Order: sequence, then structure tokens, then C-alpha cells
Amino acid sequence: MYFASDNAGPAHPKVIEAMTRANEGFAMPYGNDEIMEGVRARLREIFEAPEAAVYLVATGTAANSLALATLSEPWQTAYCSPVAHVYEDECNAPEFYMGAGKLTPVGNSDKIAPSDLAAVMGDSADIAVHSAQPGPLTITQATEKGRIYSCEEIAALTEVAARAGQPTHLDGARFANALVALGCTPAEMTWRAGVDAVSFGGTKNGCVGVEAVIFFNPEKAWEFELRRKRGAHLFSKHRYLSAQMQAYLQDDLWLDLARRSNANMGVLSRGMKEIGAVFEHEPQANILFAALPRATHRRLQEAGARYCLHGSTEGDDDEMLSARFVCDWSLPESEISRFLDLARG
Amino acid sequence: MYFASDNAGPAHPKVIEAMTRANEGFAMPYGNDEIMEGVRARLREIFEAPEAAVYLVATGTAANSLALATLSEPWQTAYCSPVAHVYEDECNAPEFYMGAGKLTPVGNSDKIAPSDLAAVMGDSADIAVHSAQPGPLTITQATEKGRIYSCEEIAALTEVAARAGQPTHLDGARFANALVALGCTPAEMTWRAGVDAVSFGGTKNGCVGVEAVIFFNPEKAWEFELRRKRGAHLFSKHRYLSAQMQAYLQDDLWLDLARRSNANMGVLSRGMKEIGAVFEHEPQANILFAALPRATHRRLQEAGARYCLHGSTEGDDDEMLSARFVCDWSLPESEISRFLDLARG
Amino acid sequence: MYFASDNAGPAHPKVIEAMTRANEGFAMPYGNDEIMEGVRARLREIFEAPEAAVYLVATGTAANSLALATLSEPWQTAYCSPVAHVYEDECNAPEFYMGAGKLTPVGNSDKIAPSDLAAVMGDSADIAVHSAQPGPLTITQATEKGRIYSCEEIAALTEVAARAGQPTHLDGARFANALVALGCTPAEMTWRAGVDAVSFGGTKNGCVGVEAVIFFNPEKAWEFELRRKRGAHLFSKHRYLSAQMQAYLQDDLWLDLARRSNANMGVLSRGMKEIGAVFEHEPQANILFAALPRATHRRLQEAGARYCLHGSTEGDDDEMLSARFVCDWSLPESEISRFLDLARG
Amino acid sequence: MYFASDNAGPAHPKVIEAMTRANEGFAMPYGNDEIMEGVRARLREIFEAPEAAVYLVATGTAANSLALATLSEPWQTAYCSPVAHVYEDECNAPEFYMGAGKLTPVGNSDKIAPSDLAAVMGDSADIAVHSAQPGPLTITQATEKGRIYSCEEIAALTEVAARAGQPTHLDGARFANALVALGCTPAEMTWRAGVDAVSFGGTKNGCVGVEAVIFFNPEKAWEFELRRKRGAHLFSKHRYLSAQMQAYLQDDLWLDLARRSNANMGVLSRGMKEIGAVFEHEPQANILFAALPRATHRRLQEAGARYCLHGSTEGDDDEMLSARFVCDWSLPESEISRFLDLARG
Repeated sequence: MYFASDNAGPAHPKVIEAMTRANEGFAMPYGNDEIMEGVRARLREIFEAPEAAVYLVATGTAANSLALATLSEPWQTAYCSPVAHVYEDECNAPEFYMGAGKLTPVGNSDKIAPSDLAAVMGDSADIAVHSAQPGPLTITQATEKGRIYSCEEIAALTEVAARAGQPTHLDGARFANALVALGCTPAEMTWRAGVDAVSFGGTKNGCVGVEAVIFFNPEKAWEFELRRKRGAHLFSKHRYLSAQMQAYLQDDLWLDLARRSNANMGVLSRGMKEIGAVFEHEPQANILFAALPRATHRRLQEAGARYCLHGSTEGDDDEMLSARFVCDWSLPESEISRFLDLARG
Repeated sequence: MYFASDNAGPAHPKVIEAMTRANEGFAMPYGNDEIMEGVRARLREIFEAPEAAVYLVATGTAANSLALATLSEPWQTAYCSPVAHVYEDECNAPEFYMGAGKLTPVGNSDKIAPSDLAAVMGDSADIAVHSAQPGPLTITQATEKGRIYSCEEIAALTEVAARAGQPTHLDGARFANALVALGCTPAEMTWRAGVDAVSFGGTKNGCVGVEAVIFFNPEKAWEFELRRKRGAHLFSKHRYLSAQMQAYLQDDLWLDLARRSNANMGVLSRGMKEIGAVFEHEPQANILFAALPRATHRRLQEAGARYCLHGSTEGDDDEMLSARFVCDWSLPESEISRFLDLARG
Repeated sequence: MYFASDNAGPAHPKVIEAMTRANEGFAMPYGNDEIMEGVRARLREIFEAPEAAVYLVATGTAANSLALATLSEPWQTAYCSPVAHVYEDECNAPEFYMGAGKLTPVGNSDKIAPSDLAAVMGDSADIAVHSAQPGPLTITQATEKGRIYSCEEIAALTEVAARAGQPTHLDGARFANALVALGCTPAEMTWRAGVDAVSFGGTKNGCVGVEAVIFFNPEKAWEFELRRKRGAHLFSKHRYLSAQMQAYLQDDLWLDLARRSNANMGVLSRGMKEIGAVFEHEPQANILFAALPRATHRRLQEAGARYCLHGSTEGDDDEMLSARFVCDWSLPESEISRFLDLARG
Repeated sequence: MYFASDNAGPAHPKVIEAMTRANEGFAMPYGNDEIMEGVRARLREIFEAPEAAVYLVATGTAANSLALATLSEPWQTAYCSPVAHVYEDECNAPEFYMGAGKLTPVGNSDKIAPSDLAAVMGDSADIAVHSAQPGPLTITQATEKGRIYSCEEIAALTEVAARAGQPTHLDGARFANALVALGCTPAEMTWRAGVDAVSFGGTKNGCVGVEAVIFFNPEKAWEFELRRKRGAHLFSKHRYLSAQMQAYLQDDLWLDLARRSNANMGVLSRGMKEIGAVFEHEPQANILFAALPRATHRRLQEAGARYCLHGSTEGDDDEMLSARFVCDWSLPESEISRFLDLARG
């Protein structure tokens, strides 16, 4: 009954098999392996972006930090949600990679409103030398709260950024979960909606540790390569990153796995609703924030359920305590059932 | 006939098997997996250092840069050989992680002489606010030229650093190759000789991508963890790093593989000597810098041999051209024989 | 009729005279001049802090950025008001000097509430490696809105910071204005209320360009010196900074000038109130945010009055537009009268 | 008898007078003062560079660091002499401002040889992602050893840099001393010889603390302004920097003062030679490195002479000890005579 995160489950067996298959003889290092050629071609095809620059790194924080750094200058501020992973969970990695750039939280929600963004990005003609200069927008899809921007919502945000002369980055640690929920194409969810760069997540969706960074305009490709090396994120034995991504993309494994984790959340959230859990938002991907009585939490945790509980299991039984539940693709439905049975009491 | 580097060979099958074995169910993320507990204990045992702080990262550049940063301040300079990997091959990653610290090249060789070091580290009592302040010493064992410091040579260098109040870092990307050549213990080659922190390499010696960073004094352990996260080098699915290192240490696989690559170099260098190659140094580990006539290089390269040639195959046939040859553990002896046959002409 | 800022007025003649007097023969460079000895002693006396480390720099941004950097680590976040100068008006200088550290805006006002601070600084025992670590608190006294923290309010804030193990910095660009308004001693407004470091402003209060940075605990004095040099803020001909500060402190000139600018604001604000201006806050130092009808603004600006108007003079005459008015010590009362006459219409 | 540096002498009275004159009423802050307009125009005229971007900062380290940062990227290395001020005397300020860029020492002398430079800047087509990328060249004129590059020598160096696609910065802390020694025009010594940016020193040649940074190609002007603000080097009361530079340029004061300090060195060095001092180089500007017997040094130092002596006055009387002697413009000839009399014994 592990609902703490989708970063604790196993890799899909096909991913491990691809790594094993890749483990044969010598291969050119540093991204020059043959598997990477195929990965690059396949991602360009999937995104309908034949010119895109495509790179692999091993962590989501690296993907986000390197992408934001490449899109910004050290005297700028990037705009993000106050609950964005880049703002809350990367221990100043974005600032470090941006060369001491800034992140400005916009609004009070996981989804940024275009009007809130417009209010802070302002009119770049007005900006004096004294304040942080406007920099890129970064949005998370699916968000850290398990919600999803529609393609139109993304387009409305990128338009605000573009009016200020700024690009948009999309943190797609759960890109696939959002895509299958929306039922649109990768191109529609990104460059057709004005997105300039994507962190395309694999790790949380069945890989060992691999994320692609994709720039639809390849102008800064070489700069990215230098930034990646300088950040110590260029793998010598790169083929093992390539192999993961190869298997992940093959036969739409990435979409299958995202459908599974979203479906798992469907089962969980329907059950939770029945037992009276209070939702922060209706879950659209594989994350749910919901409140349950303390007594229920205590029973669940004592039975071994793992999830992020905000508060202590000691105290008034009836008090509602909020918690985060994440469904991994690998979660057996029996575990969800057992969890719900326990929650029902 | 691949002699270009030991970063292009496969991982040892046992390493892949361990990763496959680790791919079962949920595991605590971020270094809290159970396998890591065993790895930590085993490395402390191997190094006879029960208090040591032990961490894993995926690249050697990350290990070196994070270790140096943890041992220094941004207004300091670290001391290294002018051919050190940190100085020549990490695209300013050490400087980046050190917060814009400096690296001062010492002497003209891969091995630093204590007298040269003493001349530049000087008397710290003398240092005014104007110059970069003395920082840590970093040495590479085995060196980038394939040579090895004796334990006494290491002790002589760390003593100079310690007199200036500074710690010593050892870049052990080829730690095992040096250790089996010296026939000493890990403790003798490190903390007993005054070394404070080690990058303990796995990647070049049969792993997929894993390096341990070991601090014998755990005082800055938490700082290192923060630096690792901020550098985007903390893996969520950390168990796959742990599993590599577990297999690498099990039954002395790491020592076996190093013996193999050193033995491969023995075969190669004896053969090269017979055919009149001119050595820069007698190889002590698995790297050789040697000059051959251009015609020989041309013949080798045309037959598909891969290694770093300094110069063009076009030109005077008899001119001696220097090249770097590295032997991977996985290199079949038949390949070395074929190479030598070709070289003989 | 210059109300745009207190950074555009002249230096007090005594400050220039002191610089002229200092311009005699050779003087030890880099802060080793004799005048500095006297300045250091005098500031320690004024602050009743015989152990304090005292340094001079030429800009307020340098004072704040260097002080915050000295009190923090690159993986931390400093806490400040969202309208703090460090947050809004220093073009990422604090982040740059902090080594890519972060600034977290607290609350929605120029004055931070202890409860808001406690909510974000949280319980440091809880902090995992993923988020920015708690760092120092920085408050501005007088604030950017012209308000003043009482000594008790300062103590309440520093207590919250101290509970999280963090020091407090006070941005005293307008230190003197606050001090004379409160009628307390420098010690009461700083270390007795738990403040650890102060940017003690001179530039906005009658100097050419000089700020003192004072650490009540001198533990990091040498680190500060290295940071100052590395930031290129160590003056070789330091005596001209020393001479300014000498004159500024002599015979309480600094207090006299602050009383003058505060008194000027008294005249201005009383007059503004009479003519119906709507105040954002009651001014406590030399800054006022007040709204006037657009037509009034147009009349004032056309007559040559200079101040920061938020909005355009084009549009509906009756609409109230907010503006910032700052009174310099050097502002002749006749100018204020002329301004008020014009405002009255 | 102060020969320790030209940063310890007084400002020329006209510089102080100009500051006093500027101290009248309100003036636009942050470089928008009227005096600066004249300074900008005058420097463009002097350099015959009507498009040049011209800025003022208060320290030479700021001028150099900001200029190098503007001309480089964080993954590059700048090339300099191993005795360059930027390399030896700025406590990692260039690296800090360059965003953790690197400085590569070229050759073994204060003057860089074009062949040495070509050897290290290499062929940029060859550079892989692993090493620091080629960045700007920086030369010092007059050098830290008191020597001067001819305009042809400068052109030969900038040509090597340009072939690698890199700009050249000239550290002109003693620009005027070199110029009057060469008898050429500022344009000839800079952009006509291929120099892209200049730190034009005032502080060491009679100012209080002011340096101009000049970019002949104004393309990065706005970036420089942001970097200056972010470095905390933008003065609010900028007029006092402007006034210094105004007086410095007026009626060729800058050239007169440089002639005086060079002439002082002429007197000193002729005298030194007569008494058998051994010169490291023939002095061409206002700096001399010369060796004298220890007994002579002891006599001089005991009589109050101030200069940088490399070694202790304790020891064998006859041993020759090297020392650095710098002549300020303000040095009275009587002091030089007294010094030489003492040296004669």
C-alpha cells in the first residue's frame, strides 16, 4: 500500500531488459551511442518536431534546472507556481544552474492564471535596471496537485510570456499522465500551444532514471550541451540512458504506463469519495490531495499504508487531516482495494 | 580494438543482474533504500573507516566537483596537476560547484611533486585578502597518464596540504587499478596517508554509472547531501545506484576487474615495446601514452582500431606521433593480439 | 521640488570637507588608513558593541548583499518582505552574492508579522533535503513604505528567526531616520533586540556613497573581508570612504540630517493631509505613499515636481493615483511650501 | 618615501574640487547625471569611438571583472598572464563575476607571447564539450611588471584571439602611464589594435576611486548595466564618480599625472642603476622590480621607506633581495633623492 510517490516503484521490466540488451561490447560514450540516434529520431517524430534538440539526463531536477538556465539570464526571474517542484523541492538547484537567477511565485495555486502572470510579468518596456528582469515562464503538467492544464490554458499562458518576449518551459515530470488524460498529441500540448522547452519525464513513469530535455528551437543546443557537461550530468556510458528511453517509447509503453497510474488513481479516488474523503481538487492524473479523519489515517498507517500525511496521527480522532496520495503504474489493484477496505474501517 | 577509453565498455553482467534483482516492488527513494545500507557498511569496512560518510552519484565529474566544493570556499583555490581531469576535462564543473572557486595547476606533470606544491601553497600566514586563498589539494590515483603515487608519495603531499591547513581529495576514477598495482589496502592509500575525501570510481571499471564519494570525517555529511541535491545529483530511484555498487563490491569484483584491465595493459605494453613504441611513462595501471610512426597509426586506424591520436594520419610516414591507449577490463585478449599484429606490420 | 528619492540630493558640506581634508599625502590602502581606525572605534561606541566587526562599502546593495551572503549558505533561503529593497530593487544582487541562494517573500506588507514569519520558517527539525533550507531573516528599518518597527516588534521577529537557528540582518539604508523617530539607542534597535548584522546607511542621509556593515559577533569578520574583496568592493583608496563616515558620525551629524528629512516629511504630510491626499500609511520616517487626483498630479508634474507616480497623467482628472514622495535632508522648506501650494491648486 | 603602490597617494586637488563643485542641489541618480553625459562624450572623443558604450565603476577589480564577465560565458576560460592582476590579486572576483568561469595562465611572463597564446587558444574547431571553452584574452597595459606592449604587439595578440573567435580586454589600470610612454593615441593602443573592451583606470593616477569601462562595440551595453547593478556597483549618487572622471580628463590632467609618475620612475631608476641595483626589466612606466643587498634594504626600511620587499631584512647582509617600487604622480622629487641617498649608504 505505497502511495507516497511515483518515484519509489520499480522500473518496467522492458526498461531493464533494454538496458541489459544494451550491455554488449563497446559503445561510443557521451551521447554518441547508436541507441541515442534512434531515441532522438523517435522523440522528434512523437513531437512532430524534426528540428528539435533532444538530450537525456538522469534526474528531473537536472532536466528542469538545465532547461531553465538555458532559457534565462542570471539577472532574470523565472515565473512559476508557488507549489512548483522547481520552487519548493529542488533545494535551489534552478537558482544554482541559472547562475543565481530568481524564481517568482505567481498566484496561490498549482495552476497559474494568465491574469496573475500578466500582472507580474508586466510590460517589459517598463523594467528598469534595478529589479530582476523578466525571464521565462515555467509550468508543471500535470501539476504538483494532480491537475492538468488544457491546451488552451497553456496557450493563454505562453501568450502572456511571449508578449513579454519570454519563452515557456514545461516541467513534464508527469507529461504522459497529463497527455493521456487530455487525449491530445504531444505537439498540441507543447509547441503548438507555445511551449519552447520540455522536461519529458521517464523516471516517475516506469524508468530507472531518465528524462529528456527537448528544445523545439535548436538554437541553444550547443549551449545546453556545455551546461549539461558543466553540471556533471553528461554520462560517459550514455547508452544506458538511451536504452531506458528507447524502451519507454517503444510500442507506446510510456502511454500505457501513464494510463495505468491514472486508472489506479481512478479506482482510489472513487473509493475515497465513497467513504467521505474531502478532496482538494478532483484528481486528473495520478495525484490526489484529500482529507480523512485522523482515526482513519491512524488505522491506515498502522496497517502499513505509506503516503504523505500533513499532521500527526496523535490527537482528536475526528479532525480531518489532509494527505497526498500518488498512484504508481505498478500498484496492484489488490493493494488499492485493501487500502480502501481499511479506510472504510 | 577499442583503446579509446575505459568509459565505452559494457558493465559487468553481475552489475546488470544486481540492477535487475533490485527491480522488485517499492523501495524508499533518495538513498534510503535498503541496498544502500549494505553498501555504506561495506565501504566503511573496506576502508576500515566506521565513521565515514558515504554517498553515491552517477558521474565522476559529479563526485569530484561535489567533493571539492564541500572541502573548499568560493574564495579559495584548489591545487591540482595541470593534466588533472578536474582541470582539463570537466568544462568548469569544479569551479561551478565550488561557487566560482579557482584551480591552480601545480608543476608540469601528472604527478605533483611535494616541493612544487609547497612552493605554491606557501605559508598561509602570509596570505592577504587580495589573492585566492589556499584551498584543498586534489590528486588523481591512478593519474591521467597511467602512473601511480606510492602511499609514501601521497603522504608527502597531504602533509604539505595539512601544513597549510588544507584537506586532500583523491580522484579515484581508477582507484581500483591503482590499488591492485600497489598491493596495499584502501585505508593505506587514503586516510592513513592523510587523504580526507575520495571519489571512488565504479563507472570506468565495470559499472553502468556510479561513483562513491567518501569523507573520512563525516562532519560535512549533511552539507554534502544538500550540495548533491542542489546539484540535481540526488536520484529518486536511488536503489539502482546502490545495486551497481553492491555488485561491484561483492566478492571483490572491483578488484578482479581492475586486475583484468591492468593485465590487458601489461600485454599491450609489452607488445608495444617489442615493436619499438616510445613510451612517455612506464604504464602502471591501464593507460599508456606511446608514440608510433605515422604509418603504423594509419594502418591501425584503417583497420578499425580506436584510440586518441595526437595528430593527423596524413603526412610523413616515419614521424613519431603520440597517442593514448586505455585498456578496459572487457577487452578480449584476442583484440589486443590483433592490434599488436597490425602494429607490427 | 525633488521628492523622487533621497539618493539624488547633495552630500552634506561637512562630508565633502572631510574628504578634502583626508586628501593629504600617502595613506595605507584597503581599510588600513588611520581614519578608519577612528570610525571603527566610534561605531563600536555608538552601538555599545566593543567587539563588533565594522566595514565600509560604497553602496547599499553591496552592504545588504555581502551581509546576507555572510550570514547564509547557498542552499538556504533568506526571509524578507515582498517589498524589501533586497527583493525588488537589487537585480538579483543578493542571490548573486549568496551563491545562488533564495529569498522568500513573507506576508503582503512592508512590515513582516511574526506569525507570518513563523509559518514559513517552520520547524527546522522538519526540513528535508529537497527544499531550500531556512536561512537568515532580513528586515528593513525604516521600511520601504516609510514605516518603522518598534524595538519590541524587532525582538519578536528575531526571536522567531532564532528559534529556527537563524540570524537576523537589518537593512538600515534609513537607519538614522528610524532611530530618531523611535528615540531609542542604536543598541536597542539592533543587538539588544536580537539583530546580528546591520547595513548602516550613509548614502541616503547626506553622504557621497558609504555604508557600514556591522556584525555584532565578529566570528565571520575575515570571511566578510574575503567576500568584500571578491565582490570588488574593497577600495584601495579607502580613506575617502572612512572620511565620509567620520564626518557623518561627528557631532551627531547623522542624527541631525535624519531629523531634518523626517521633519521635512512632517511638513509635507501635514500639508498633504489638509488637501485630502489619501495615505497608504501614516509616514513615520521620510517616505510617504499617498494618492492624489490625476489633475493634481498633472499640475505638479508640469510645474517640475519630481516623484514616483504610479500611472499616467493622461486620463480622468478625478481618478486618484498613488505616488511615492521622499524627503531628503537637503530639501528647502520653501520647496515643500511651493509644492503644497501647487497641490492645493 | 612611499614606493609601495600608486594606490596610496592623494587624489589630485582638481579631482576633489570637481567633486565639491558637483555637490550642489539634486542630480539624477544611477548614471543619469548631467556630468556623466559630458564624460561619455569626452571619452568617446578621446578614443575616437563615437559608438562606444562607456560606464563608470569605483574599483579596478570591478572594472576588470565586469568587463570579462560581459565578454565571456561561464563555461569558458579567459587567457591572461600568470602575473596578471586578474589572476593573482582579485581573490576570485573575475571567476565570481564570470559565473564560475576560468582563467588560464599563458606563458611565464607579464607580457604574453602570441605564440604561447596560439598554443593554448588552439583551434576552436577542435574543442569538445569536456574542456573549458576558449574565452576572451585579457592583457594588462602597462603590465604588473612595469613593461609596455607596443601597439604592434597588442595587435599580434588580438589577432590570435580573433582567430579563435574571441574578443580582447585590456586592463588599463595604468593606461595613461603606458600611453604617454608609447606616445600613441588611445585609439591606436586599443580598438585599432583589435582591443574590444578597456578598463580605463583613474584611481591609481590621481583620482579618489573611479574607472571607466569602455566597449567599442555597444552591443552588450544593456547587459553590462544589468551586470553592474547585480554586482552592486551602480552608484545612486553617481555624479561623484562622474565628477572625478570629468576633472581627470579635463585639460589632459590624466596625461600630465601619468607623465609625472613615469618621470619620477625615471629619476628613481637612474639612481638605482648607479648604485648597482639589478633590474628584472627596464622600467617603462612607473613600476620597477629591482634587487638590492639586504643591508641596503634594512637601512632603507629602518629610515621609513615603504615598498614591497620579497624576503626578510634579517640575514646575510650581501644577499640580493628583490623588491617592487612604484612611483605615484604625487611623490616629491625630494623624497626620491632622500631615498637614493639612503640607498647609496
